[in-house]
Amino acid sequence: MKIARTIAEMKEIRRQLPEPVGFVPTMGYLHEGHLSLVRQARTECKSVIASIFVNPTQFGPNEDFASYPRNTERDLALLEKESTDAVFMPQPEEMYPPSASSWIDVEGITDQLEGASRPGHFRGVTTVVAKLFNITEPTRAYFGQKDAQQALVIQKMVSDLNMNLEVIVAHTVREPDGLAMSSRNVYLSPEERQSALVLWKSLNLAQKLWSDGESDAGRIRQQMISLIESEPSAQIDYVSIADTGTLEELEQIDNSSLVSMAVRIGKTRLIDNIILGGQT
Amino acid sequence: MKIARTIAEMKEIRRQLPEPVGFVPTMGYLHEGHLSLVRQARTECKSVIASIFVNPTQFGPNEDFASYPRNTERDLALLEKESTDAVFMPQPEEMYPPSASSWIDVEGITDQLEGASRPGHFRGVTTVVAKLFNITEPTRAYFGQKDAQQALVIQKMVSDLNMNLEVIVAHTVREPDGLAMSSRNVYLSPEERQSALVLWKSLNLAQKLWSDGESDAGRIRQQMISLIESEPSAQIDYVSIADTGTLEELEQIDNSSLVSMAVRIGKTRLIDNIILGGQT
Repeated sequence: MKIARTIAEMKEIRRQLPEPVGFVPTMGYLHEGHLSLVRQARTECKSVIASIFVNPTQFGPNEDFASYPRNTERDLALLEKESTDAVFMPQPEEMYPPSASSWIDVEGITDQLEGASRPGHFRGVTTVVAKLFNITEPTRAYFGQKDAQQALVIQKMVSDLNMNLEVIVAHTVREPDGLAMSSRNVYLSPEERQSALVLWKSLNLAQKLWSDGESDAGRIRQQMISLIESEPSAQIDYVSIADTGTLEELEQIDNSSLVSMAVRIGKTRLIDNIILGGQT
Repeated sequence: MKIARTIAEMKEIRRQLPEPVGFVPTMGYLHEGHLSLVRQARTECKSVIASIFVNPTQFGPNEDFASYPRNTERDLALLEKESTDAVFMPQPEEMYPPSASSWIDVEGITDQLEGASRPGHFRGVTTVVAKLFNITEPTRAYFGQKDAQQALVIQKMVSDLNMNLEVIVAHTVREPDGLAMSSRNVYLSPEERQSALVLWKSLNLAQKLWSDGESDAGRIRQQMISLIESEPSAQIDYVSIADTGTLEELEQIDNSSLVSMAVRIGKTRLIDNIILGGQT
């Protein structure tokens, strides 16, 4: 497994990798969600590149950039075990030199949900992902459905700007009890870890209500909110039932609606989602 | 010479072109300036692609998008004569479908000069150029020094976003009397065509003052302004002596200063520039 610590090294390694090339961008502290993306890339592509980069530009000033969990040694061992061909681990100073001032904005679908709660977040995401795409030139790039809006925004960027790759969005990987895998789960105390199940429970509730014939999004949303609020350590950031294309809130659910939420459990902000009428 | 009228056609043609590929993006109505870029690309690359696309997003609401001169038949004959391999002539509807909402912004150096006079102009330029780069995947792309700020902005975008191509900036091509070649020169009446020489005259004046030992940018600017104002049909938009890196206005000239201007001759807005201490 080759490790590139500079952009030039990565571009040089990339030139020698057989096509098609699969790419899994990560912020490290890898879990089964990331590794399942690597495995899928391994199955579908001749070469697999992963990146580990905690991207400062997608964190707000009061967010957890400094404390975001890091464990490079463990990450590299996990990637090696999955037969990753190359890992790109750039320095923030090279990715964002003081002169850097170019940004990519995907307008419209970044106004809602995570975009509304985290101003500037998606500008940071799209800019770093475009840079990583240019550096690694993947045939296919793999993202998790857990970050549903991120996946939509990146698919839209790729389409709008005519980028030469395919974006693959893979199922959310969950703990046995249903909690969506996330590097941020490490922040949770044992008690909070139990409380955090309320996200998955509320998504199951939405699924059940819809399966039982309820199509009024407002009523489903309200029942989800009541369930989450019954958990004392949970504080809702948003609970949304939105059109999967525009991310506009729906009054009536059709069969491709994104049911998503951001909830604080203590100080830890968690997100999760399902698509009603589709797979999670 | 192959002609691609859709993005898919262009990407397919591109796959079959031998490397390195040179790319000359244009808005058509070609003149010697464009053709000299094509000739340089022809000399330096195995394959040459030109594009003809009057990009709506780089024109302001009160600018000349609708009246911008077009003559596709003549353009294609000229490109054929220069042994261009492929011409990309997309439709605005395909380049900007109603759903398109992704934009690239290069901040800082787009605030001044053309950016200050034409709000939104460079966002349109960088976005369309990034799209064209993704569609044609050039090894090298060729731009004219006449649009000095555009060349700087595109170089910065390519560098900031780690795009995989080289930006080549070629000398301004001039009429025998010094007027910079521009598709917009066709707007000038015979009298205005004479008046338009004041741009080149004022650049020569700056060059002469500097060669004679004047390094105070304010004094040079003032003499240029006086000369231009002596021409009754000329109306100054800006006259600038700026740092070639930051485009910040200078008080003292060093040996790589961009002397540039935008001047209206009647209703026609013309731009021109030289680099003091360097070549035009």
